[in-house]
Amino acid sequence: MRQLGAEVIRIDPVGGAADTSRWPLSAEDRSLYWAGLNRGKRSVELDLTSAEGQAAIVELVCAPGDGGGILVSNLFGKSWLSDDVLRARRGDLIHVQVLGRTDGSPAVDYVVNAATGLPYATGPEQVAEPVNHVLPAWDLLSGMHAATAVLAALHRRREQGVGAHITVSLEDVATSTLTTLGMLSEAHQTGVARPRVGNAVYGSFGADFALGDGSVVMVAAITGRQWRELLEVTGRSEAMTALEAELQTDFGDEGERYRHRDAVLALLRPWFAERTLDEVASALDATPILWSPLRRLTDLAADVVAGRSPVAQVREEPGLGANVVTTGPLRLRGEADAEVAPAPGLGADTAAVLGATTSGGAG
Amino acid sequence: MRQLGAEVIRIDPVGGAADTSRWPLSAEDRSLYWAGLNRGKRSVELDLTSAEGQAAIVELVCAPGDGGGILVSNLFGKSWLSDDVLRARRGDLIHVQVLGRTDGSPAVDYVVNAATGLPYATGPEQVAEPVNHVLPAWDLLSGMHAATAVLAALHRRREQGVGAHITVSLEDVATSTLTTLGMLSEAHQTGVARPRVGNAVYGSFGADFALGDGSVVMVAAITGRQWRELLEVTGRSEAMTALEAELQTDFGDEGERYRHRDAVLALLRPWFAERTLDEVASALDATPILWSPLRRLTDLAADVVAGRSPVAQVREEPGLGANVVTTGPLRLRGEADAEVAPAPGLGADTAAVLGATTSGGAG
Repeated sequence: MRQLGAEVIRIDPVGGAADTSRWPLSAEDRSLYWAGLNRGKRSVELDLTSAEGQAAIVELVCAPGDGGGILVSNLFGKSWLSDDVLRARRGDLIHVQVLGRTDGSPAVDYVVNAATGLPYATGPEQVAEPVNHVLPAWDLLSGMHAATAVLAALHRRREQGVGAHITVSLEDVATSTLTTLGMLSEAHQTGVARPRVGNAVYGSFGADFALGDGSVVMVAAITGRQWRELLEVTGRSEAMTALEAELQTDFGDEGERYRHRDAVLALLRPWFAERTLDEVASALDATPILWSPLRRLTDLAADVVAGRSPVAQVREEPGLGANVVTTGPLRLRGEADAEVAPAPGLGADTAAVLGATTSGGAG
Repeated sequence: MRQLGAEVIRIDPVGGAADTSRWPLSAEDRSLYWAGLNRGKRSVELDLTSAEGQAAIVELVCAPGDGGGILVSNLFGKSWLSDDVLRARRGDLIHVQVLGRTDGSPAVDYVVNAATGLPYATGPEQVAEPVNHVLPAWDLLSGMHAATAVLAALHRRREQGVGAHITVSLEDVATSTLTTLGMLSEAHQTGVARPRVGNAVYGSFGADFALGDGSVVMVAAITGRQWRELLEVTGRSEAMTALEAELQTDFGDEGERYRHRDAVLALLRPWFAERTLDEVASALDATPILWSPLRRLTDLAADVVAGRSPVAQVREEPGLGANVVTTGPLRLRGEADAEVAPAPGLGADTAAVLGATTSGGAG
């Protein structure tokens, strides 16, 4: 939201919320996570259990004007911040509640993911235990859905003068997303949960290959052209044609490449195993084949340090050290890049914001 | 976008794009993936290599009015659809290009993810090979960033009358996201890529536990209260206090719970191993502890079939069978639920849409 130009005020209880000291930490034990998520926001710290603190928040949330009357909250079931209470103060309020579960109860990404079934569809075929994703994808997607909800509701409020009360939960985002991708239809129609297939690209051609120098690369050939060029560059066109004849199939169909991936990979692996990363890179970069070396988080960080990413940079910040910072992934062509704003100190804007609201509300 | 009330017209080359037959497929070999992603859109099928087809698209994209002049595209480097060409026709165009890599070259989620380093931070500690996530998180997040970009640019256009040319790539979304989460700062500052930690919640308390009846549950205790209640419900308060004394630490700090997770888990595992899922559920549901059974995709689908999800339902659709469908995860309280629209037939709206634009353009 902030990256798109909004003024965002984060309200925390005294001492901060549970994420205030969340890992990873800087050398000075400051949360790099918290700093990243709250960059450019203003910070208000209030006693949320006191009548005064609660009244100040209601006042702030229901402040007049086009830029006021917008609340994104992860609270549920608090009578003093209920939609009814707020809407009585400002009828055209835009109120978005980001919840854990559908019923409003709390949840975190890992727990929501456990319930989806994805951990048994992730990882090498021979692994027996569940494998969670490390990226908190449901958190991230829920945040993005909340942002689009605010923007869409704001459009509607400007056009029609009406507010909106919208809830979005990690659980509902997971169900909706896996529905949109066809994964729940497939599970329902076949009665079988999609199995683990290692790093294969489900229903198409993708695999990781070990190279002769110890590197590993991920290669995908989704389109017919990528597939033909992969056979050409690896010198496997004739062998693959013979395999197709033997199996009575056509690998021009990406699904067939997937079904027979063991036989297909057996033909391709030697080419990769005999080459170094440099050799593979020169060969594949001359084609439209999709590929990348498997890297480490430190490699990506090194890219940023070397100035190779347009969306991130390193900056020395008090308490945070040499910090990797971003203005977000959107690049506005022909316009000046936004400045990377620092994270606020917890509660740094309490007096300024509450003073401003009080006078605004009185005006 | 469509879920938020926009009319979305998808333009495909003759025969459809590469995702037209993407897995999963229905029993009648129709793509459940394509149907899910294109639900409620209108479909225009055109020869993109012909001058006539290209001219028709430019005409459509640059149609007048507040609802026109918006293009979200995954094309790059096509001179006939360049931003210059389009902007000469409509100066206030909102043009969002969703790309694979920063430089505009194509990429898919798995290949982008390989370059981030996450596959070596995912999965059980003893696994040596890279483990890709199964959820195409970078695709999904890039789509959401594109949606917020359109909405924010539309706000600005209405206020200031100016257009925008915005690019967003899977690669930039990955770099930006891992920066925001503090993961790249951590890698840069420590010089060490975050290791695999199985299903532990990094820097806090989370783990999967095998139960006596063969079930597996994921449990997280992020807050101090969740941690204390976990010790109480499992009868481990005294034992954990003794362990804290022995290790000279305080597990009230979630980071300490993480650092000493092997010892902590050794104390907790027997309680779970002696119980059934029903017993664990009754015990934990009476507390604020975050937990879920590890399930299968078929379990989540069964929830939907049983009407237990407010955001998805099963519906018989031609060619697609008993299909799980969704209107998206946003729930507008106090307003009627949106109808689930079907996916279009490929090219079904070509004549209607192009006819409308031509007359609109002439008007």
